[in-house]
Amino acid sequence: MQQLTWQDSAVRDVLRHIKLAKPFCYGMTNYIAANLSANVLLAVGAAPAIGGAMDWPTVFGANANAVWINSACLMSDSPHQVSQTAQAAHAAGVPWVLDPVALGAGASEYDQVVLGLLAFKPTAIRGNASELIALTGGQGGGKGVETTLSSQDALPFIEEFARRQGCIMAVSGPVDYITDGTRTVSVAGGDARLTQVTGAGCSLGALIAAALSSPTDPLTAVAAAHAFYAEASQRASGAQGTGSFAVAFLDTLSLLDSESV
Amino acid sequence: MQQLTWQDSAVRDVLRHIKLAKPFCYGMTNYIAANLSANVLLAVGAAPAIGGAMDWPTVFGANANAVWINSACLMSDSPHQVSQTAQAAHAAGVPWVLDPVALGAGASEYDQVVLGLLAFKPTAIRGNASELIALTGGQGGGKGVETTLSSQDALPFIEEFARRQGCIMAVSGPVDYITDGTRTVSVAGGDARLTQVTGAGCSLGALIAAALSSPTDPLTAVAAAHAFYAEASQRASGAQGTGSFAVAFLDTLSLLDSESV
Amino acid sequence: MQQLTWQDSAVRDVLRHIKLAKPFCYGMTNYIAANLSANVLLAVGAAPAIGGAMDWPTVFGANANAVWINSACLMSDSPHQVSQTAQAAHAAGVPWVLDPVALGAGASEYDQVVLGLLAFKPTAIRGNASELIALTGGQGGGKGVETTLSSQDALPFIEEFARRQGCIMAVSGPVDYITDGTRTVSVAGGDARLTQVTGAGCSLGALIAAALSSPTDPLTAVAAAHAFYAEASQRASGAQGTGSFAVAFLDTLSLLDSESV
Repeated sequence: MQQLTWQDSAVRDVLRHIKLAKPFCYGMTNYIAANLSANVLLAVGAAPAIGGAMDWPTVFGANANAVWINSACLMSDSPHQVSQTAQAAHAAGVPWVLDPVALGAGASEYDQVVLGLLAFKPTAIRGNASELIALTGGQGGGKGVETTLSSQDALPFIEEFARRQGCIMAVSGPVDYITDGTRTVSVAGGDARLTQVTGAGCSLGALIAAALSSPTDPLTAVAAAHAFYAEASQRASGAQGTGSFAVAFLDTLSLLDSESV
Repeated sequence: MQQLTWQDSAVRDVLRHIKLAKPFCYGMTNYIAANLSANVLLAVGAAPAIGGAMDWPTVFGANANAVWINSACLMSDSPHQVSQTAQAAHAAGVPWVLDPVALGAGASEYDQVVLGLLAFKPTAIRGNASELIALTGGQGGGKGVETTLSSQDALPFIEEFARRQGCIMAVSGPVDYITDGTRTVSVAGGDARLTQVTGAGCSLGALIAAALSSPTDPLTAVAAAHAFYAEASQRASGAQGTGSFAVAFLDTLSLLDSESV
Repeated sequence: MQQLTWQDSAVRDVLRHIKLAKPFCYGMTNYIAANLSANVLLAVGAAPAIGGAMDWPTVFGANANAVWINSACLMSDSPHQVSQTAQAAHAAGVPWVLDPVALGAGASEYDQVVLGLLAFKPTAIRGNASELIALTGGQGGGKGVETTLSSQDALPFIEEFARRQGCIMAVSGPVDYITDGTRTVSVAGGDARLTQVTGAGCSLGALIAAALSSPTDPLTAVAAAHAFYAEASQRASGAQGTGSFAVAFLDTLSLLDSESV
């Protein structure tokens, strides 16, 4: 299995593209993670807009360079608005990311709405092991928004699902795996304290959207976003405490320079 | 009146339990405080989920180890969803915290919905003096979400109400008072700049929920959460400015070690 | 054209008033910017409340010392609630600020609701060049919430509109311009990284509301809020990375002392 890191020029190419093109990334996400998600996008030079205000879903969903839908947005958006966004992106050929937060944690009405979004063919789906195993029909066993399984547990499930659905699947953990069902790459490193910063996983969904707006192939683009995260969080690892770590992480992400390793 | 501090082993026992059990804490809260509330819970090792997405209120309200309802969640949740959460927690025997933000500030329709939640028997109610005096039927005289009274002013009101309602009442101020109507404990210390960090009080409501998931008696558990706050904010007091203080507070909270004073 | 800075005593008078009077500022805003907006107000000593919970719009809209409406609040508030707030403030003679986020970016239903708020006579309107040119009927050409034009491009549009509408217009950019249609003042300085902190512009709308609660004339008050921002962000410019910069900005804003330059 290929391992991708910040050292790979293909990874840095994706960041170079984002910094030059300043892609307009539109997100439907939950209000816990919305602020960090926007700051993560701004840190790499993308132009975010978030939220289901009136006709933003249909207009921004179609006009953006990339879209991400974090299904916990259902805490303030209606199922109809979420579908509208997915449909608008799909119809316009805009790459879009699905982040099925808390899928399989027991809320079956919520789960049904999330699974209904698969009809609009997300370009990539990201999540933790519990969420993605639940998405593929397995027993994910999540506890609220936390996973109880490792990313490696999810690997066979997501490889099979990626082939069947025709999308990129990306599972986060101590080692991240990104697959199109045929080829799988891994991204290691990072800092476990990222799991103690609320919305860090959700914000990775936003960053994946920005990466998908680049001309790089989707599998590499999605893996590149994971590699930015791993590199930035590793560079931030000197921070003491979870508050400083979150600040240092945004700092190091904003200071990543596509021209230097 | 007994004074509890971080020095008391009963206080540190509550933190030890949270770090070991990683309780799943479900919250309905306002979007201003949601991010900090989740980060406060993650800092002490709890597993938060927030928001009224579809059937989360009934499912997570019943399945969580503890629940908190910050009534300003009515800015994005419906009265029905809030009641569902309270009812689910009550029916399942899950301890839950009510934080009646801005009660008594003049919005009578809002106040009615908040008071209606008392039927679902919150385990603990926390707030500032104005809010809690208003809750007990007195003239709280709050200005928006700010209090115009001292925590000591609220003491006789909340002691009487705690007895009548059969719950823990906790009022925040330069000195915090926590009472079950029979026994009252105080928690002193902390840093006044905590009142300049938006959502700090709301996030204490989340932390109280986590504390109530421990086997410690509820009065001590609620006081312990206040003592974590006092200790962490005091350790953060070297920070210059309100931005650094907020970061330092999360840091010191995440670095509190139940094995050392 | 007059240039105002932190050095001008008229600017510092506005801050002195806010610190003494602690104005209650009520905002309807988007959940991405809500946390920072509240923290910006707390940093200067104002008392914020945010959100459309039940009857807060009518009660707090009328009772506050100042109100701000960031139209992206439509992602969680209904058009009716937003109108209620504007109407309540207008009827009660409470100064209020309109921030027409993303106006002219293509979402025509959204734009219609925003333009409808002009009937309630905002005291001041702030935004970036694209938004304000669109407001005046020109081709703003924004990309999501980002502007594609300079503040100077907007100047003739906003001067004419300020006269016609009878309000203060304020456009943000490397140089900010504030006008009542007859007199125009500029505020320079600041740090471009403020545009990489999500919600910084939205939070300026909140700060303008606080400034308008002072007895200073509205044009100077609105310019003063811009000057606080310019001074604080310049003092924060030593920070490395966008995360540290955001923290340092809140710090320097909270440490601005009206008694010293």
